[in-house]
Amino acid sequence: LVALLGSDLPIVQAPMAGTTTPELVAAVSGAGGLGSLGASVLEPDELRAAIRRIRELTDRPFAVNLFAPHDQPEPTDEVVAAVDAVLRPVRQDLGLPEPVRERPLVPPDRFEALLEVVLAERVPVFSFTFGIPPLDDLRTVGVRVLGTATTVAEATQLERAGADAVVAQGAEAGGHRGTFAADFEEAFIGTMALVPQVVDAVGIPVIAAGGISDGRGIAAALALGADGAQLGTAFIPCPESAAPPGYKRAVLAAAEESTIVTRVYTGRPARAIRTPLLERLESSGVEPAPFPAQAALLWDFRSAAAELDRPDLLFLLAGQAAGLSRELPAAELVATLAAEAQEALARQQPARS
Amino acid sequence: LVALLGSDLPIVQAPMAGTTTPELVAAVSGAGGLGSLGASVLEPDELRAAIRRIRELTDRPFAVNLFAPHDQPEPTDEVVAAVDAVLRPVRQDLGLPEPVRERPLVPPDRFEALLEVVLAERVPVFSFTFGIPPLDDLRTVGVRVLGTATTVAEATQLERAGADAVVAQGAEAGGHRGTFAADFEEAFIGTMALVPQVVDAVGIPVIAAGGISDGRGIAAALALGADGAQLGTAFIPCPESAAPPGYKRAVLAAAEESTIVTRVYTGRPARAIRTPLLERLESSGVEPAPFPAQAALLWDFRSAAAELDRPDLLFLLAGQAAGLSRELPAAELVATLAAEAQEALARQQPARS
Repeated sequence: LVALLGSDLPIVQAPMAGTTTPELVAAVSGAGGLGSLGASVLEPDELRAAIRRIRELTDRPFAVNLFAPHDQPEPTDEVVAAVDAVLRPVRQDLGLPEPVRERPLVPPDRFEALLEVVLAERVPVFSFTFGIPPLDDLRTVGVRVLGTATTVAEATQLERAGADAVVAQGAEAGGHRGTFAADFEEAFIGTMALVPQVVDAVGIPVIAAGGISDGRGIAAALALGADGAQLGTAFIPCPESAAPPGYKRAVLAAAEESTIVTRVYTGRPARAIRTPLLERLESSGVEPAPFPAQAALLWDFRSAAAELDRPDLLFLLAGQAAGLSRELPAAELVATLAAEAQEALARQQPARS
Repeated sequence: LVALLGSDLPIVQAPMAGTTTPELVAAVSGAGGLGSLGASVLEPDELRAAIRRIRELTDRPFAVNLFAPHDQPEPTDEVVAAVDAVLRPVRQDLGLPEPVRERPLVPPDRFEALLEVVLAERVPVFSFTFGIPPLDDLRTVGVRVLGTATTVAEATQLERAGADAVVAQGAEAGGHRGTFAADFEEAFIGTMALVPQVVDAVGIPVIAAGGISDGRGIAAALALGADGAQLGTAFIPCPESAAPPGYKRAVLAAAEESTIVTRVYTGRPARAIRTPLLERLESSGVEPAPFPAQAALLWDFRSAAAELDRPDLLFLLAGQAAGLSRELPAAELVATLAAEAQEALARQQPARS
């Protein structure tokens, strides 16, 4: 893996759209890991500028991540009205105006335009989730390709499609999982069980993800037969991340029981720290709008969160190992993770018999 | 842990009530692991005989496991009638008579009587799940005590109550998880995330469980900071297990997506391989009777399964790593697991840096 992706350490910083910054990516890559920019929320010009900024900061390899192209169905007026009705008392309490809904709620998918930037800029590694985009053009220009699987069948599909490596993402993972060829519930497989079964099924390198936030988890991933580990939540508290201070505090304060998987934030299952807003939406029984329109219906809460200093109005996406996170500069975190992983493995030597 | 429990290897065979036998327990303990007898389904005389049989077969330490005392509420007639109505067409298809329901559906809890046998026989290790029974008498006579936790809070409660070690049981685990002081959904934490957080919270040894079915998983558990690993599903196919042949075949044929967590078998969430019977009960939307009465309502299917050679009528309890199981005699399986764990750790040497 390390040879394949060009990093020194088998540590991948997960692409968290909206939370990753060029500074975070460059700090991770500069420290020997593989930084990843979650780019699906960017405009093409923003992506180009971000890639160039990363390259100003480091000459080490890094990844750009996109959501694979996907339908973006518009919700019916009835669905929008039902969601708005649940939120009306909250908006009133906060003094937020009732939103005016313009169609389409979600702009057309920018995947093609963003991929053109990835190709033109010859990014070292392209990673993706939610499906399998066409990979030929990327491979032709020498971009390494990293797909995301949540089942064995998804991993083998990625291998057949030409992925250079696969992220095996277990149910502990924060935010959205990459499930694309399975029912979400059937694909709800813990990292400990998923990784060795994926390793046995594919010939390409496997990167374990989900529930890993310290070096012990990285060592465990390697013991399971993975070639590396991908950590997301662990990097949220870094000064280089774009997470608002309240989000960082929530991650640092989280316990192992703090998160649930919910569709109320984006329409697609995502693991997040419980908040009163999340629980109100969940307990309402109101069906969320389809992904990603549901996120657009809640957008004003994100803006209000900063203005009102109310982190509980944010989508606090985080995994089940959030409780292991620390507040360290990203480069220092990468070095700490590597040292911890070595120590965890060394503790087992001489091997028991 | 090895010193504490007296076994040579940090490998615990999980107590699976109804599936473990004295022969399985003795074979595991004889091979250097810790065999565990799932005893809550036994009568006191049966337990005494089983303990004595284990001791005939091995002089190595072993564990006896009981469910902590728990309420056994009787379901209302309406609940029983609703469950029976869902099953009526299945019984008709199979030629099974409509069951005559006698009350109580479940005999009084035998915990006290079984614990007396454990004490009188001075079993080396007593393990338990579903709560915390009084431990003083056990500790007074020198029985080592092993509790089961599915959250950090449960683990710290067990430590305070005097447990000598704690099994940290992740969401991948087959059958019932031990959750006793948390909401089942909140306690649905993957092994990879749960184990290091429990390790950080308690001073007693931790045994990782859930999603571990080969030596790579054991090595990963040790890397996470656990002192050992508990495997259940991996031992179901052993010739020494009491699982009917169709259950063994189902485990060996399982994939990572084959199981779901369901209350339809016993009234308490349990992970099992999907069958048409399970799916009929799940999709009916009928509320199961409370634990353990629901199991009594389905008892005739278990008897019919053997008679009709229909393994799909059994409760095929299994974890998410069932796909890693092999059909080996228990002693050979223990030796294989130990060798695999060593190899998984050795592969990481020299440590990466």
